[in-house]
Amino acid sequence: MDIKNKSITPRDVDFAQWYTDVCKKAELMDYSNVKGFIIYRPYGYAIWEEIQHYLDKEFKKTGHENVYMPMVISESLFKKEKDHISGFAPECLIATIGGGQELQDRLIIRPTSECLFTDHFSHIISSYRDLPKKYNQWCSVVRWEKTTRPFLRGSEFLWQEGHTMHSSVEEAKEETLRMLDIYDKLGQELLAVPFVKGRKTEKEKFAGAEETYSIEALMHDGKALQSGTTHYFGDGFAKAFGVQYLDKDGKIKVPYQTSWGVSTRLIGSIIMVHGDDNGLVLPPFVAPIQVAIIPIQRQKPGVLEECKRIYEELDKLNIRVKLDDSDKSPGWKFSEYEMKGVPLRIEVGPRDLENKQVTICKRNTQTKEIVSLDKIVTEVPTLLNLIHKEMYQAALKNLAENIHEAHNIDELGEIVNKSGYAKVMWCGDRACEDKVKEMFNATSRCMPFDQIPIDNKCAICGKEAKYVVLFAKAY
Amino acid sequence: MDIKNKSITPRDVDFAQWYTDVCKKAELMDYSNVKGFIIYRPYGYAIWEEIQHYLDKEFKKTGHENVYMPMVISESLFKKEKDHISGFAPECLIATIGGGQELQDRLIIRPTSECLFTDHFSHIISSYRDLPKKYNQWCSVVRWEKTTRPFLRGSEFLWQEGHTMHSSVEEAKEETLRMLDIYDKLGQELLAVPFVKGRKTEKEKFAGAEETYSIEALMHDGKALQSGTTHYFGDGFAKAFGVQYLDKDGKIKVPYQTSWGVSTRLIGSIIMVHGDDNGLVLPPFVAPIQVAIIPIQRQKPGVLEECKRIYEELDKLNIRVKLDDSDKSPGWKFSEYEMKGVPLRIEVGPRDLENKQVTICKRNTQTKEIVSLDKIVTEVPTLLNLIHKEMYQAALKNLAENIHEAHNIDELGEIVNKSGYAKVMWCGDRACEDKVKEMFNATSRCMPFDQIPIDNKCAICGKEAKYVVLFAKAY
Repeated sequence: MDIKNKSITPRDVDFAQWYTDVCKKAELMDYSNVKGFIIYRPYGYAIWEEIQHYLDKEFKKTGHENVYMPMVISESLFKKEKDHISGFAPECLIATIGGGQELQDRLIIRPTSECLFTDHFSHIISSYRDLPKKYNQWCSVVRWEKTTRPFLRGSEFLWQEGHTMHSSVEEAKEETLRMLDIYDKLGQELLAVPFVKGRKTEKEKFAGAEETYSIEALMHDGKALQSGTTHYFGDGFAKAFGVQYLDKDGKIKVPYQTSWGVSTRLIGSIIMVHGDDNGLVLPPFVAPIQVAIIPIQRQKPGVLEECKRIYEELDKLNIRVKLDDSDKSPGWKFSEYEMKGVPLRIEVGPRDLENKQVTICKRNTQTKEIVSLDKIVTEVPTLLNLIHKEMYQAALKNLAENIHEAHNIDELGEIVNKSGYAKVMWCGDRACEDKVKEMFNATSRCMPFDQIPIDNKCAICGKEAKYVVLFAKAY
Repeated sequence: MDIKNKSITPRDVDFAQWYTDVCKKAELMDYSNVKGFIIYRPYGYAIWEEIQHYLDKEFKKTGHENVYMPMVISESLFKKEKDHISGFAPECLIATIGGGQELQDRLIIRPTSECLFTDHFSHIISSYRDLPKKYNQWCSVVRWEKTTRPFLRGSEFLWQEGHTMHSSVEEAKEETLRMLDIYDKLGQELLAVPFVKGRKTEKEKFAGAEETYSIEALMHDGKALQSGTTHYFGDGFAKAFGVQYLDKDGKIKVPYQTSWGVSTRLIGSIIMVHGDDNGLVLPPFVAPIQVAIIPIQRQKPGVLEECKRIYEELDKLNIRVKLDDSDKSPGWKFSEYEMKGVPLRIEVGPRDLENKQVTICKRNTQTKEIVSLDKIVTEVPTLLNLIHKEMYQAALKNLAENIHEAHNIDELGEIVNKSGYAKVMWCGDRACEDKVKEMFNATSRCMPFDQIPIDNKCAICGKEAKYVVLFAKAY
């Protein structure tokens, strides 16, 4: 019965083309007439809404409040923190004309909003009573990119950015790690994507941050994808923007700051971790459609009625279910919902009904089982949970199998050229990172939290080793 | 016990200053360093989230899907529909530099997205099976304004914009009116704001539309506020952008289009319809905090415990409740939550507890009642419903009392100079609208749906009358 969708490039023939095919054919996105600015179509946007829904609840549970900052930053404000401006200046989109007039102070379309938040904090924080401030915003940002790919690297992308201020270093650092944990949990519970967590090197950290942490996911082609970051700023931005408060002890102090964000890049991560040659494979809890009901011989008496009955029962359980009763052929529909990665397909035909049963097909394993009509409402939630677990375990296994220790630069090169992460000891010098980049086009992804030494010398230069680092080719 | 908050200008002394004071002191917004681009603070943004929550559900119930379009429109695309570009060109913010390079095709920061949606529709609509397309997006838009006021007129504001395509004129027109009804219901059910609904005159309609409908609210100072619009486009945009489809009958046809939107302007409407000299008065269902619990003599045994118990009981009912157990004085807290317009305040003191009761104060009427402890969980929801009804009725009464018939231009002027709407007969000529604008700085707000003639000649020029129109001064 399975009709393979012939219209996409096989994954192992050309992964990049496969990716683009899936983005387009699963109707996740379309191109606009401006390069790098994509259209999030209903199916793609609905995935983002599920991610938003999950995170927004987690953010609010941990005491964060949503705000909305302007989408423009005046050039004069943007220049206040030197590292920050030098990091972002090359990729700015700049508005120079407003209402027909040339602007005196040009406006940068926000690439990130540290400047706006810190400036605002300087107006609303004056006492220890005003701390902590824990804000988040959902918006889009613009970073002018030369090479763009849907969801992975765009001139505009959707994200959330959290910005917080604290009275102590400890509290700020705790926040930085707490939010990283929430991102990690999102991977485990919603995306079925296991992340490697760790700290970025000086070279790879955010412009203006003291410490940057990240979650890194491993794609099917063996490349890493940075999927979210959290930053500890110390008091650098706060000092640059004049944020101060009167503490309990009567002294004027400067607060400590964090920021953190994930973006629609996560959609790219879902596609490239789970997808296969038939298209998308969506983890059940982030899937806009969790169950597709397909009538077989829909004109036969009872078939559509039974489909509707099943639809209503599942809908009552808050399962996101779609009944496709259009006049397209069952084969077309099978292929369509496979392409869209719908976790479960229920086939309802006259012969099934005679036997008081239906056929349920799991998208992730392409396996079928017969389920009696009176067991559907218990079986469907069970299967959705099972699929989630299977998908997470498969991704976890792939990750575990693609982290390899390397003790010298040749081993490092061999590993990253093949697939996945090379786990190495590193001296801490940027020169070694530059060398790896130059030789293999790989970068340090992070210094993982479990810093158990595997050697005492740097795998690249041979000097004394300080850190365990994961190198990989990355998007 | 009521301590009036002295720090805002009384409403009838200087309404404009009162409005600005409330926006700032209730912590709804703050100014950024770019004129017209405001910061939506947590309390203001939470009101918008309630509005979003209500509308998003209504949109999805009526078959609309959310998408996200680019925040920029290339100048070449923007120029495709002539009326549209001439309407919006004077207020565009234009980006001319990207990644350090001058842009060949300059980018307009979206003031509205008809061009983007219609261009996208031209790529995804090819068959009658693709219709209708019913899309919505939540985003911010930029219109460069000379005179700006928080929520009412900003260079950037948050909104939703619906864009739909239909196979028939009837279906498109139905959609235009259906969405107007949803906006009207939002006013009745959430904002406690009664709207006048009607059609805009040629002069006041949207650039590029065939018909524009609006909901108009009446502010406390007697001025009208356009609070939402829906547009029927015919096939004008579709033709300009080459949208076509193959119909069942084998003929190539052009679809019919609508768009519709409401914005954070609605927050301005809530403030100016309901507010008083103590600050905001929020309708219960849109209020981020519905109940504030204030302990009196919080150090006395049992007081805080009882406050927490009440908090938990109300929280369980999904009532948005806040317990302020900070060390600020009860007087400060009363004033603070009055300023913020919290619908109900529960005072819990040792004397109340002895009598197994609490004091509940209604923000809208400033009246108090004693409620026994075991009745709180039934009384609070009842009071919230009652407050909503009272607020809606009060606003409705004010609206009804401020629509007056005028039969000549002097009467018209007298009415709009005093307060509210002048209901007049009109010949349909733009010259008459221009004259009213010039003489009284008032505009035609809409031609209400109940077109029952009150005269047979135009109140302005005396020629034969065609329409009933409402004129008013407006924001």
